[in-house]
Amino acid sequence: MEYKIFSLGSNDSLAQRISDKLELPLGKVKCRSFSDGEQQVQFLENLRGKSIFLVQSTNPPAENWVRLLLAIDAARGASAREITVVAPYFGYSRQDRKSRPREPISARVFATTLESLGATRFLTMDLHNDAIGGFFRKTIVDNLYARRDFIGHFREVFKEALDGDDLVVVSPDAGGVVRAQSYAKRLMRSADLAIIHKQREVPNQVASMKLIGDVKGKVALIVDDMADTCGTLARAAELLQENGAREVYAAATHGLLSGDALATIGNSPIKKLFITDTISTDRELGDKVEVVSVGETFGDAIDRIETGESLSALFQTDEDDEK
Amino acid sequence: MEYKIFSLGSNDSLAQRISDKLELPLGKVKCRSFSDGEQQVQFLENLRGKSIFLVQSTNPPAENWVRLLLAIDAARGASAREITVVAPYFGYSRQDRKSRPREPISARVFATTLESLGATRFLTMDLHNDAIGGFFRKTIVDNLYARRDFIGHFREVFKEALDGDDLVVVSPDAGGVVRAQSYAKRLMRSADLAIIHKQREVPNQVASMKLIGDVKGKVALIVDDMADTCGTLARAAELLQENGAREVYAAATHGLLSGDALATIGNSPIKKLFITDTISTDRELGDKVEVVSVGETFGDAIDRIETGESLSALFQTDEDDEK
Amino acid sequence: MEYKIFSLGSNDSLAQRISDKLELPLGKVKCRSFSDGEQQVQFLENLRGKSIFLVQSTNPPAENWVRLLLAIDAARGASAREITVVAPYFGYSRQDRKSRPREPISARVFATTLESLGATRFLTMDLHNDAIGGFFRKTIVDNLYARRDFIGHFREVFKEALDGDDLVVVSPDAGGVVRAQSYAKRLMRSADLAIIHKQREVPNQVASMKLIGDVKGKVALIVDDMADTCGTLARAAELLQENGAREVYAAATHGLLSGDALATIGNSPIKKLFITDTISTDRELGDKVEVVSVGETFGDAIDRIETGESLSALFQTDEDDEK
Amino acid sequence: MEYKIFSLGSNDSLAQRISDKLELPLGKVKCRSFSDGEQQVQFLENLRGKSIFLVQSTNPPAENWVRLLLAIDAARGASAREITVVAPYFGYSRQDRKSRPREPISARVFATTLESLGATRFLTMDLHNDAIGGFFRKTIVDNLYARRDFIGHFREVFKEALDGDDLVVVSPDAGGVVRAQSYAKRLMRSADLAIIHKQREVPNQVASMKLIGDVKGKVALIVDDMADTCGTLARAAELLQENGAREVYAAATHGLLSGDALATIGNSPIKKLFITDTISTDRELGDKVEVVSVGETFGDAIDRIETGESLSALFQTDEDDEK
Amino acid sequence: MEYKIFSLGSNDSLAQRISDKLELPLGKVKCRSFSDGEQQVQFLENLRGKSIFLVQSTNPPAENWVRLLLAIDAARGASAREITVVAPYFGYSRQDRKSRPREPISARVFATTLESLGATRFLTMDLHNDAIGGFFRKTIVDNLYARRDFIGHFREVFKEALDGDDLVVVSPDAGGVVRAQSYAKRLMRSADLAIIHKQREVPNQVASMKLIGDVKGKVALIVDDMADTCGTLARAAELLQENGAREVYAAATHGLLSGDALATIGNSPIKKLFITDTISTDRELGDKVEVVSVGETFGDAIDRIETGESLSALFQTDEDDEK
Amino acid sequence: MEYKIFSLGSNDSLAQRISDKLELPLGKVKCRSFSDGEQQVQFLENLRGKSIFLVQSTNPPAENWVRLLLAIDAARGASAREITVVAPYFGYSRQDRKSRPREPISARVFATTLESLGATRFLTMDLHNDAIGGFFRKTIVDNLYARRDFIGHFREVFKEALDGDDLVVVSPDAGGVVRAQSYAKRLMRSADLAIIHKQREVPNQVASMKLIGDVKGKVALIVDDMADTCGTLARAAELLQENGAREVYAAATHGLLSGDALATIGNSPIKKLFITDTISTDRELGDKVEVVSVGETFGDAIDRIETGESLSALFQTDEDDEK
Repeated sequence: MEYKIFSLGSNDSLAQRISDKLELPLGKVKCRSFSDGEQQVQFLENLRGKSIFLVQSTNPPAENWVRLLLAIDAARGASAREITVVAPYFGYSRQDRKSRPREPISARVFATTLESLGATRFLTMDLHNDAIGGFFRKTIVDNLYARRDFIGHFREVFKEALDGDDLVVVSPDAGGVVRAQSYAKRLMRSADLAIIHKQREVPNQVASMKLIGDVKGKVALIVDDMADTCGTLARAAELLQENGAREVYAAATHGLLSGDALATIGNSPIKKLFITDTISTDRELGDKVEVVSVGETFGDAIDRIETGESLSALFQTDEDDEK
Repeated sequence: MEYKIFSLGSNDSLAQRISDKLELPLGKVKCRSFSDGEQQVQFLENLRGKSIFLVQSTNPPAENWVRLLLAIDAARGASAREITVVAPYFGYSRQDRKSRPREPISARVFATTLESLGATRFLTMDLHNDAIGGFFRKTIVDNLYARRDFIGHFREVFKEALDGDDLVVVSPDAGGVVRAQSYAKRLMRSADLAIIHKQREVPNQVASMKLIGDVKGKVALIVDDMADTCGTLARAAELLQENGAREVYAAATHGLLSGDALATIGNSPIKKLFITDTISTDRELGDKVEVVSVGETFGDAIDRIETGESLSALFQTDEDDEK
Repeated sequence: MEYKIFSLGSNDSLAQRISDKLELPLGKVKCRSFSDGEQQVQFLENLRGKSIFLVQSTNPPAENWVRLLLAIDAARGASAREITVVAPYFGYSRQDRKSRPREPISARVFATTLESLGATRFLTMDLHNDAIGGFFRKTIVDNLYARRDFIGHFREVFKEALDGDDLVVVSPDAGGVVRAQSYAKRLMRSADLAIIHKQREVPNQVASMKLIGDVKGKVALIVDDMADTCGTLARAAELLQENGAREVYAAATHGLLSGDALATIGNSPIKKLFITDTISTDRELGDKVEVVSVGETFGDAIDRIETGESLSALFQTDEDDEK
Repeated sequence: MEYKIFSLGSNDSLAQRISDKLELPLGKVKCRSFSDGEQQVQFLENLRGKSIFLVQSTNPPAENWVRLLLAIDAARGASAREITVVAPYFGYSRQDRKSRPREPISARVFATTLESLGATRFLTMDLHNDAIGGFFRKTIVDNLYARRDFIGHFREVFKEALDGDDLVVVSPDAGGVVRAQSYAKRLMRSADLAIIHKQREVPNQVASMKLIGDVKGKVALIVDDMADTCGTLARAAELLQENGAREVYAAATHGLLSGDALATIGNSPIKKLFITDTISTDRELGDKVEVVSVGETFGDAIDRIETGESLSALFQTDEDDEK
Repeated sequence: MEYKIFSLGSNDSLAQRISDKLELPLGKVKCRSFSDGEQQVQFLENLRGKSIFLVQSTNPPAENWVRLLLAIDAARGASAREITVVAPYFGYSRQDRKSRPREPISARVFATTLESLGATRFLTMDLHNDAIGGFFRKTIVDNLYARRDFIGHFREVFKEALDGDDLVVVSPDAGGVVRAQSYAKRLMRSADLAIIHKQREVPNQVASMKLIGDVKGKVALIVDDMADTCGTLARAAELLQENGAREVYAAATHGLLSGDALATIGNSPIKKLFITDTISTDRELGDKVEVVSVGETFGDAIDRIETGESLSALFQTDEDDEK
Repeated sequence: MEYKIFSLGSNDSLAQRISDKLELPLGKVKCRSFSDGEQQVQFLENLRGKSIFLVQSTNPPAENWVRLLLAIDAARGASAREITVVAPYFGYSRQDRKSRPREPISARVFATTLESLGATRFLTMDLHNDAIGGFFRKTIVDNLYARRDFIGHFREVFKEALDGDDLVVVSPDAGGVVRAQSYAKRLMRSADLAIIHKQREVPNQVASMKLIGDVKGKVALIVDDMADTCGTLARAAELLQENGAREVYAAATHGLLSGDALATIGNSPIKKLFITDTISTDRELGDKVEVVSVGETFGDAIDRIETGESLSALFQTDEDDEK
């Protein structure tokens, strides 16, 4: 069966890489912004009976989100057979629970909305919490892992440290230990881990950070899913340095890099921050940020979906990890 | 039963006017924008078993829209008994049909979304097309009319012209004749109407406008539901002037006034543009724009909803108008 | 893939024309009426995995409607793959809004019902309000336009008047100006329009009609979507005659022609009323009524749906019209 | 809390009896039929926050059904708090299964439709199959039993036969034995039953009926849920007479009495047919038909619903009957 | 299109017979029970785009039920195109109505649950009440009949009695007469029936059973849908013997045979109890129980579903039976 | 408003404690098990218009789960106004994601099922993953924390160690660090943490455990959400002992204690295992297991729900914890 891929504008360069990988030109779609800021989407190709893939990361501004919703509605009305939302980065996924009274579960809002409009499938990467897959009911979720691309790259970059058993993977907070462990296990025979956690806040005083585990003389690789303002990352790097780490690196799938993030990284002891292109990287990122593209992985996934092959090879789930 | 009103930020001044009318202070809610632009909402008051009203017009930027969705989710999770969305202006309501192939019905997208999150009631004003009420199923729609506030004001402003049978109400396009007629019928015994319509487009040529009806020597009042870029409005005013109108006024419920709208109005023959405060008017609008507040009307509606009285007095529906 | 077309009895002759156009005999289905008036439907052919089209206009009596609902349920239970409701006339579409307090939005009732039973697609013509398409959510709506068939016919019938720039298209009420304009634009280079509108009702007095625009010495073509009792149409024709129109014609897609409609037309100055066969025309209509069949247009639409071609060519939407 | 009762026209006299029982005047609602046969409903009283009861049996013509659907939509749109459909007779309930291939489950169609429009509760009597209650999900079903009214009446009418152990209850077909047994058990210490069943059809030959059980010299009371054309009933009565029954009576909750039913009864050996007023009895029924009103039972049920009392006393379910 | 069949453990031997019939090996699925009793299911084959059949009868323990639910969820998440639940025995189908106040409609609970998880189709046999098919809405129900397999077998087993017009089919209660009649009509030219029914309970006294119809000197075949504890069956057999039946047999589609059923049958006058393998028969059943496999019938049904043929030949519905 | 509490049998003693706390006797409900194992539930009190609480933990056997589903259906059918499921332990919540290909998200299955049957609210404790709250949409989730009861108890039990800064809280795996941290922060000014994690599995070799952090000479308190077979717990305790811990304690909210758990604990270095009564503790647990009741906390929550007070005081969410 024929399928088509469309880019809705929030990450055109990744869409192009997916298109290149699949040797399938991007479909024609017109995305406009009216004078008052309202969005409009019009597909310029016949969709009747087709399986279509809408590439759109849903990071702010929220117009990215609205354009995706409008495109789903337009595609359904135009009789597309299957509508796969390809959201390499799923915005608002950090709000996956009520952490304070009378707060929303924002990730649920976005999942419910996509589903209510009739998205058939949701293809994403490194959800903040794997359980977010359960926020969907009818829409099928395939959550890919950047590990597939990062691990290979790290084996080369950190070859020396790995050969010398000198690498330690660091979780920058208590919630990231499973992720850090999953990298450690894949990189090293004897997974070496360290954890940074915050201590009890005292009013009018910055929460102090504490390191558990030994990093002395080692190459420390902080692993996280997002790099946003990078403040915590920078403080973590300093703490690792104070505790004797030889070199500090960081890796995060989703490079939001908002506010002064680039300056913060620049001024920190971090030697290099590895991110992927799930969020558009079409701006000057400086020397310290290195982008590992996940375009091929998404291309592979789309190809397998269309040919009816299993995605499991791409998933690399944590079946043997602790939960 | 107790109820509470919250303002979600897109139109705080109207929310305040509603609050004043009802002599009920606005409830406490914290709306934050994170560094990357994501929105967060937290209610700071107990909502358990309460009926709540969320005042939020949904004009761009789309963050206005997202904040409303998050607030509905938060309110449901906090056991609010009833959640009334008060959206004096309902963004995207112009896209109420597929006007080109493979376009979305955007107003349906927004209606479906609100309903899928569990909004109990939707209170709005001057929907672009009354039929949009039918896009909702479980959520009850109450569509108020700015006529209630405009007509009274016009009777004073245009007293002289009305007394002299000198007023003509003008529809600026073919789709607005019912609206124009409904104003004419309420203002005058003998409803005097004129209509401007576009002729067939010739490629590479501006569609020319044509006037039907007589405006010579009259005070012309163009009536529309929205004033956006005001280009069409200005051209219509010129056409009326060319056809001998003595004075040209314009009225539009929703004052989007995007792009160069204020300058366009300033340079046009329009003597005054009347708008309401359904969209925030907290900026310099200049001498030619006059704001008629609908705060009391919304306050009355909320009061009737809570006391179980009929809203019909406020509706002033077109029961005797042609459809 | 194979598909089948069934006629459910309210408009067998149009169903037959569609069948002829597609060179596909109508499928076998048994529609019975029990002694007490209850309806029963049984498909006499295997539907498993088939795409089926159910031709049924939903004008009264309501048994037409019930038979359609039962047929959808039967088809789903018999594992039909796709169920397209072909309702050339969609009954109750005039009630598309609450025009008085505590009235239903009847068109929503019928849309919701069809959708709740699992109709895959809804193929109709000249919806009273295009926005009714938004009353559906999962069911895909394709709204065809009788213009495609009428315009060609009118170019011939009114050739002389068109050549002499002598035709004026008339909207019989304020709500029909967009429709009238859309015909005028397609028939003439310089769209000539006139509008009839009702003035404010005075208790115990018939609302008087008023004409805007010039019809003197012209051939007037009143355009409407429905011809029901034809009382308004007849009064409009008289008003046009009084204002000097040379000849008066009328056109309406859906020929309900209820009550004394035929006599009313007969006694009016209308020279000819053009209708289509969206509603069964199997009765004596007299000399003044001329039927333009839309059978080929529906046949084309079904063919394109099944072959996966775009319907846009058939739609002729109002993309360049004002809304 | 306040509640209101409205009659939608198919059974005004029963609605009036319910109103009398409750000493609550019927609410004002305007039901119109347009010239083309379309229905319109408008409530003329404020419904905001009220619990309302819509009395409407749904026997043909289907306009009865449509009026009910429109009224539900109107009531929801007018903010009624609870909407109870009171359908003493639920049309189409005989089609509760697929009895032939590619037939609908018509009762499901009507149940799903009512629920999709938002009916809160469904109050009915003697459903053809008690399991139809399970066709609803969100709408709460309360199925009353005419037994409550019939049994008391029969104890008087058949006092002599009961005292003499001379009554036999007869099921007119294999599917009605549970119902017949439930009457027999309530009327007599030693339930006396007989059953009529059809034998294998031979092509071109009327299925012959066969009697099981002894009726010689007895007063036979045929019990059924519906009396429609009464053909089977008349033949059953003849068979009973041939087998020596002294007198033959019949009872059926729902008196459809369609076609020549009254004549058929008149010419049969049946001495009296007892029906209730679940279907309007406002026509000449002749001497042989006696109506037992269920108005008080429905009134009681509504009263209990509104005061929060249990309906079980009214239900008289078959807890001790075999299923 | 390719399809796969999986057995979920409650009736592996029937699944194997279906697989043998279709010459299609069972798919690989891993069903585990954790230490605390929780169930887990994992499909070990790619399901993407496949039509799959899950064979699982849902008799207790409820873990059978849970495993089915988990499998449906897993299959949807793995992108199976169609999910057919093959439940030869549908547990809880006896509770198809509220027989006492404040009881559940249990069969609805199970139907709603299956549907809410996205089962495409439900293939079962001899539902306790055919109307249970109407408890489903989106899930398509195909209810097969064991009659197809039983009748052929009985024609051989009871050849002598049938030839001598010596067979009488007996319903063991008032609710089973339609079923008994449907067997009688298919086995004999002149359907011979008898019915056993319970009389009014007197407190502290066993309800006495009563026989209607003549069994003297005949071979009596009691027909029921389920054989559970077999207490009623044994008492019925005794009553038949007391009334002169020459031999007593019994047949029931679903052989639950719970508690002391086998002993009860052993000690009863029943010469043989015929059951099918809709419920696992992998245990010692003794001499008196004979199993007639329905594996071929289910295999045929699956084959027809996949090849798009009609199932009607297999249905043998009661179209000509009384309802 | 009146409310009622019912116990459905899986944890009667906790239900009784809740009842005692609220000084409200448990409502009457009859839970039966039929001979074949099917469950039946009947409420013996009028529920019309009442708010009811169904206390039922959903640990295996799955009959616990089925009884809950049936009770919800029965309560809705009996017109209960609100139905709150009180499931102190929510079974299957460990399967909150696809950890291997083609596995179900079991917790979603159970959440969706509860919601599809119409549960109004879901009150539970210590969900395995807080994000499971987002698996529900219409059903409101209130997730209580056992911390409220445990922390107070631990402050007394470990008073000496806390005063001497001698306590270290241990997470037994990578996924539990946030939970361990949340206890540490509440118990100590300077949160002292240690983490045990598994290293890469080598085929045919037990995964070795590794300790991060310093426990020498300290009192170690392992904190987890569940205590199931207790094998990992016992091995963790040994590892802590080997690393010099002075004493080892363990705490887990949900005491499943399946298989040989009690013996395993008995033979381990664990001095005491603290659990709550979310799962029935009505069996001999031995000296090493100490039960801290959460009955008062659930009673408080129910009281606040009914009086419309905020639950936040009870929640003690992790607002200031890292996520």
